[in-house]
Amino acid sequence: MPSRITAIYHVRSDARAIKARAQAIAVEQSVEMPLSAIEDRQILDEIVGKVEDISDLGGGVFAVRIGLAAATAGNDPGQLINMLFGNTSLQDDVTLYDAEVPGEMMVRDRTGPHAGLAGTRYRTGIKRRAFTCTALKPQGLPPEKLAELAARFARGGIDFIKDDHGIASQSYSPFETRVKAVADALRKVEAETGHLARYVPSVTGTARAALTYILEARTAGLRHVMVQPMILGLSNFRDLVDRFTSLTFFAHPALAGASRIDPALLFGKIFRTCGADAVIFPNYGGRFGYSPETCRRIAETALGSWHGREAAIPVPAGGMTTNRVAEMLDFYGADVMLLIGGALLDARDRLTEETAAFVRQVKDYRYAEGAGQTAWSI
Amino acid sequence: MPSRITAIYHVRSDARAIKARAQAIAVEQSVEMPLSAIEDRQILDEIVGKVEDISDLGGGVFAVRIGLAAATAGNDPGQLINMLFGNTSLQDDVTLYDAEVPGEMMVRDRTGPHAGLAGTRYRTGIKRRAFTCTALKPQGLPPEKLAELAARFARGGIDFIKDDHGIASQSYSPFETRVKAVADALRKVEAETGHLARYVPSVTGTARAALTYILEARTAGLRHVMVQPMILGLSNFRDLVDRFTSLTFFAHPALAGASRIDPALLFGKIFRTCGADAVIFPNYGGRFGYSPETCRRIAETALGSWHGREAAIPVPAGGMTTNRVAEMLDFYGADVMLLIGGALLDARDRLTEETAAFVRQVKDYRYAEGAGQTAWSI
Repeated sequence: MPSRITAIYHVRSDARAIKARAQAIAVEQSVEMPLSAIEDRQILDEIVGKVEDISDLGGGVFAVRIGLAAATAGNDPGQLINMLFGNTSLQDDVTLYDAEVPGEMMVRDRTGPHAGLAGTRYRTGIKRRAFTCTALKPQGLPPEKLAELAARFARGGIDFIKDDHGIASQSYSPFETRVKAVADALRKVEAETGHLARYVPSVTGTARAALTYILEARTAGLRHVMVQPMILGLSNFRDLVDRFTSLTFFAHPALAGASRIDPALLFGKIFRTCGADAVIFPNYGGRFGYSPETCRRIAETALGSWHGREAAIPVPAGGMTTNRVAEMLDFYGADVMLLIGGALLDARDRLTEETAAFVRQVKDYRYAEGAGQTAWSI
Repeated sequence: MPSRITAIYHVRSDARAIKARAQAIAVEQSVEMPLSAIEDRQILDEIVGKVEDISDLGGGVFAVRIGLAAATAGNDPGQLINMLFGNTSLQDDVTLYDAEVPGEMMVRDRTGPHAGLAGTRYRTGIKRRAFTCTALKPQGLPPEKLAELAARFARGGIDFIKDDHGIASQSYSPFETRVKAVADALRKVEAETGHLARYVPSVTGTARAALTYILEARTAGLRHVMVQPMILGLSNFRDLVDRFTSLTFFAHPALAGASRIDPALLFGKIFRTCGADAVIFPNYGGRFGYSPETCRRIAETALGSWHGREAAIPVPAGGMTTNRVAEMLDFYGADVMLLIGGALLDARDRLTEETAAFVRQVKDYRYAEGAGQTAWSI
């Protein structure tokens, strides 16, 4: 038997129609034509999608498992998402809930995070606690102002400082100038205080441009970058990861939530398989609509075992505040990166102190015995 | 005043909450932080999104117009979609309905279709009627079988033959082998019959891989390719268009419908601005859920005047049949490419005859006086 990917869709339907609807999805996501017109036995047997199971989830929604030939996806992540959801994404009654990829496909295709959770703990020396992160904003500030802001965050002892996802390489803040200014400022703070905050600039544009930006970031001595896989394209994201094995990649969810693909699958499996070391997602109770259950599943999937791939660090974000730190650590445990942006900036003159208070809370939290000590397998 | 992009969102809300919700979207899609934390006057005035208008569409939906600084998008299409919908795509109550881009931004950024409708009429000599197109499938067939199928379509007199969007460069049908086989078969038919059907292979994978595939397609003498912009990434799509000015690009909607971006905006403006000469979209009454009104808007937007850009050819598709040809031509007129795939394949032994019947219907249709004669402006 040829190896098969299993796609799990959630389909709105009534009980009488679901069998035909499931079969239509199986055809749409494989041969996309009337089966009566297919003469080739092997295509009917191996390439045409097969409905493996239908189960009633209640409330007019059904879980439909469909087997798809792994050979149609090959080892290209863009083609994988195309085979899982390309055309069906155009049909409003279906969401892509999960996917299972055969082990032999994953072994052949040796991708995934280079560092992930364990590698990031190893490289940074940050153990037994959660990571802390903040965001440089607003966009519109010139490089020297962003650098000044970064230095103030760094004096508060923050671990990571990422660009706001709107920051690209705009006329008022070109990538190379910004990255150099911020990196210099952070090294100056390190020389004074002994603490190095790690800058994670946002890499945007074409795949070609992204390559140039990453080389500029490396020239400035940086080891972390952020990309937006759904805007850059999944295949291009993985291509960058393949080329820069010493870098750590943060994946930002821009344009991702729109796609009716379950975020646990998209961030915890697909982004991670492409090589995301850390996956940013909207936390529950902030500006976005994810439920605690969805956030739990995202974190568990990103950290869970998945064909021997390194775990990706879950980074819940979006309207988080310092007074939620304990609650979030209760919820996520030590294997998480807490990202608080706007709420720290809102402290204005007291930005460094507020950052320090955030960092202190994360360090002083009483983690479970043995937490935050994942050993790096390499 | 700095130049502004206007984004038009449709927001589900109640009347009391809409003002605050609109303001929250304006902040989310610009500075993404509490305005109280912004000290810089210029950022508050120029970079922060501004709610320009709110109008009640009825049924609990509001149209919200928000002005966004054009400088934040620069001239990168990926960053444009990020600024229009990056984070808001993660919020279920909002769809992106339309966008207006300032003329000076469009003039600076001289992109768009190289050929478009008029250039394609000029290059192919097809005037005064609609174009005809079909699809090579099923995926899983080896190159020689696909070539055989293409030859049978060509003998029926079809104008264009596109790959099924699932066809990539799979182990059973590598791109270069397939493209060469199909191109050779079509030239052989041309030598015999005088009719050249134009092959439009599907280009997938990373931006780097796409470049190689396109070079292989050109080596095989082809002038048309199909891409999936939402999978390749919009910026990478435009980069390919910029590099291959003699090629014609078909844009396939895979993964696009999922994104809660209005298809008339996405296909008719954004894909077209990136350089799509033809835009494929799900026709009403087929396997997909678009209404006649939506299809009308897609076609009108793709063909409509838009900052001096060439019109893109609308290509309605998806479950179309030959007995709907007259109805579709009544609906779309001459400036359209009708794509019938599965229904022709379903004719099996009579595939060439059925194709010829389709072509004949399109040629014999009584178009309006003067239709299908757009002059090429170059």
